[in-house]
Amino acid sequence: MSLTQNISTSISSSSSSFLAYSVFPYRNRDVSLPSKNFGTCRCVAIPQEEKTTYKTNVSRNANMAKLQAGYLFPEIARRRNAHLPKYPDSKVISLGIGDTTEPIPEVITSAMSKRSQALSTLQGYSGYGAEQGEKPLRAAIVSTFYGGLGIDEDDIFVSDGAKCDISRLQVLFGSEATIAVQDPSYPAYVDSSVIMGQTGLYQKDAEKYGNIEYMRCNPENGFFPDLSKVCRADIIFFCSPNNPTGSAATREQLTQLVQFAKDNGSIIVYDSAYAMYISDDKPRSIFEIPGAKEVALETASFSKYAGFTGVRLGWTVVPKELLFLDGFPVAKDFNRIVCTCFNGASNVVQAGGLACLSPEGRNAMQKVVGFYKENADIIMDTFNSLGFNVYGGRNAPYVWVHFPGRSSWDVFSEILEKTHVVTTPGSGFGPGGEGFIRVSAFGHRDNVLEACRRFKQLYK
Amino acid sequence: MSLTQNISTSISSSSSSFLAYSVFPYRNRDVSLPSKNFGTCRCVAIPQEEKTTYKTNVSRNANMAKLQAGYLFPEIARRRNAHLPKYPDSKVISLGIGDTTEPIPEVITSAMSKRSQALSTLQGYSGYGAEQGEKPLRAAIVSTFYGGLGIDEDDIFVSDGAKCDISRLQVLFGSEATIAVQDPSYPAYVDSSVIMGQTGLYQKDAEKYGNIEYMRCNPENGFFPDLSKVCRADIIFFCSPNNPTGSAATREQLTQLVQFAKDNGSIIVYDSAYAMYISDDKPRSIFEIPGAKEVALETASFSKYAGFTGVRLGWTVVPKELLFLDGFPVAKDFNRIVCTCFNGASNVVQAGGLACLSPEGRNAMQKVVGFYKENADIIMDTFNSLGFNVYGGRNAPYVWVHFPGRSSWDVFSEILEKTHVVTTPGSGFGPGGEGFIRVSAFGHRDNVLEACRRFKQLYK
Repeated sequence: MSLTQNISTSISSSSSSFLAYSVFPYRNRDVSLPSKNFGTCRCVAIPQEEKTTYKTNVSRNANMAKLQAGYLFPEIARRRNAHLPKYPDSKVISLGIGDTTEPIPEVITSAMSKRSQALSTLQGYSGYGAEQGEKPLRAAIVSTFYGGLGIDEDDIFVSDGAKCDISRLQVLFGSEATIAVQDPSYPAYVDSSVIMGQTGLYQKDAEKYGNIEYMRCNPENGFFPDLSKVCRADIIFFCSPNNPTGSAATREQLTQLVQFAKDNGSIIVYDSAYAMYISDDKPRSIFEIPGAKEVALETASFSKYAGFTGVRLGWTVVPKELLFLDGFPVAKDFNRIVCTCFNGASNVVQAGGLACLSPEGRNAMQKVVGFYKENADIIMDTFNSLGFNVYGGRNAPYVWVHFPGRSSWDVFSEILEKTHVVTTPGSGFGPGGEGFIRVSAFGHRDNVLEACRRFKQLYK
Repeated sequence: MSLTQNISTSISSSSSSFLAYSVFPYRNRDVSLPSKNFGTCRCVAIPQEEKTTYKTNVSRNANMAKLQAGYLFPEIARRRNAHLPKYPDSKVISLGIGDTTEPIPEVITSAMSKRSQALSTLQGYSGYGAEQGEKPLRAAIVSTFYGGLGIDEDDIFVSDGAKCDISRLQVLFGSEATIAVQDPSYPAYVDSSVIMGQTGLYQKDAEKYGNIEYMRCNPENGFFPDLSKVCRADIIFFCSPNNPTGSAATREQLTQLVQFAKDNGSIIVYDSAYAMYISDDKPRSIFEIPGAKEVALETASFSKYAGFTGVRLGWTVVPKELLFLDGFPVAKDFNRIVCTCFNGASNVVQAGGLACLSPEGRNAMQKVVGFYKENADIIMDTFNSLGFNVYGGRNAPYVWVHFPGRSSWDVFSEILEKTHVVTTPGSGFGPGGEGFIRVSAFGHRDNVLEACRRFKQLYK
């Protein structure tokens, strides 16, 4: 086919192919020409299979190439999917990815439903909202979560989830920043840091990236790092209640952390996505610690409170008091990032968020959280009864089970093969997670009970 | 107040302040201590006002400091808000930011409403979705917009909007990439490039950033750059129909562009957010051009078709055929970015997107687009009748009006002061926009008519 013919085919089909009804079998009508190499051919002898493969002259981002294998949770999904055809009759139960399973309380979904419907009316329609979020929602977040802590409405940036904001924060801090993470920790901190070029290469032996400070958290130190051994980093990612260990830091520990940050001039990125799971008097927010506003920002989420994992809503608090070395407010730069790289969370979803923070909504969220906490109790009791050392679970939806001396991925595979239950291998959260398995409390009650029955059979 | 007292205040208030009802006047109860300087005091004489201001030791990202003033649209909103108190009785009409105004067709909102409601049921609940988007939506995007063009479902990445994906693409390409933009162009390309560190400093005289190739588009070249004068860049951002000039590239021009990219080994980021506004036979997708899949990806949006500016939904097409210099597929790295830095678009919103692509939904979107195109006609006729040279508008919701020899911001201010109509100064889109004003066709009909009456009074 000549180039002319090809173009004329494209022209004649363009008006019908755009917004075309899919009644015609278009799929096999790819009319693009075999490609030619222009400008990128750099060697004389081209291997046979590459002859017709055009490559651009754009170098792959070297930071992307540093990333190891897949992001943890897609990798687990891949292994789960590979398991299914092998055991077609098995009832696979997922206590792996930390995905919520219980319906969203009706008071919340009906608010989203109403907002959706209103968008089809002149009065109820709204276009671009404030990138930082709708004022009533920002105000409700302050009064619900930060009452008395000196956080203002304009310190709140509503987002489409904590994971997304973590990446935006990394873009804000830039490639010259250095980071510290709890080890083990939620993989998005490390992976987004690698992507931004803050790290060195992955060191296979250590199972660590260069230039990241891994703060070991294990049973010996009560899952709080020995700060006297931690090197200074610009940014300290700290998650409490912790994903994956389920451990919540005490007021004294967080006071130490804030002091450590102050002594070093570091910024704490405090991930409080599980704060509502705290049952005792441990802090729900880093801003409960005096002076924290000068060294910390906090990111949070509706995902695990209201079942919003698929709905997508979170927020980040950046206090005006948090300043860079040159005195420039971090919040001003974050505002610029939010305005340039984001366009605000969906208005429909924000209506859901506002309903979450109504008296009925808060009550309903507490019930959802309470349900998952009961699941955590069941899982903890099970592993305790089997003689395992079990951590977390009390103030978090994650149970952290110790299999001393064993490989996490081996245990993950053993559990999947023999019980058809998907868990998460601790080493997926960093080398400090090796020998542990994270069991998520997110699941229907009968699934959690059934999974625990199978655990008892396997490890009795 | 001592530290001990302070801590005990925090402890005693913590359980009630978390999820507290906002009946207590907490706002004045900020109990944080006056801060002290630890570790960052680097000079002996501290100015009086800085004595109590704690600064971290974290350097501000130098790329953020390169950014000029505010992002364009928040800046316009700021000027609009400053205008209001000066003219409290004026009826301000916004034809500025490009924000949709017409209600979303009911067939679409009812799908979102239903999906919301379903989330409160066991059967209808869903948690984390695929980061790349729901399969039926990805399939519908292919059949609606890319039928016959050889694009597969798994080339589609559903997003929360084109602006957000542009930033994610910049993160993907990294700080070593070089970019070219149409001049004038949508500011997010340049600003996200600055943030990623791809550029030099802002050069006040030239009104350009260093290390960006600005491809001048003006009436003289039919708003298509003279590619013989364009230096190679890794990434070429190209928007057609163009924001802000409203010009849509012809098939011959896009064929030239694809050839230019191929000759240089560049990657085209083709922004087709306004494709449905094309009335004639110009290409709606870069993939209508033979060979484009090897040199281009395409980002698009429901915002201007279905009034989704506040609802947030878009997509990016990254063909498998698009390869980096080392042969690594761009799509694989983009997939990793999407999985690490994003968690998928809201499930409620994706239900709306799927409804957009049903036969009724497509019909309804065409009507919305048709309505705004009539507005564009009215605006074009107005400025034509006043003797201005007017561009765009035929295949785009933007009318690009020439005020030769005048400053865009001066004209913007003149129009705002004298007609209370908000437009957008062309120079906000780059130096090539100087002397132009972008008038958006997004508005209620009576507002557009009234704005045009006022334009006629001002410029008669």
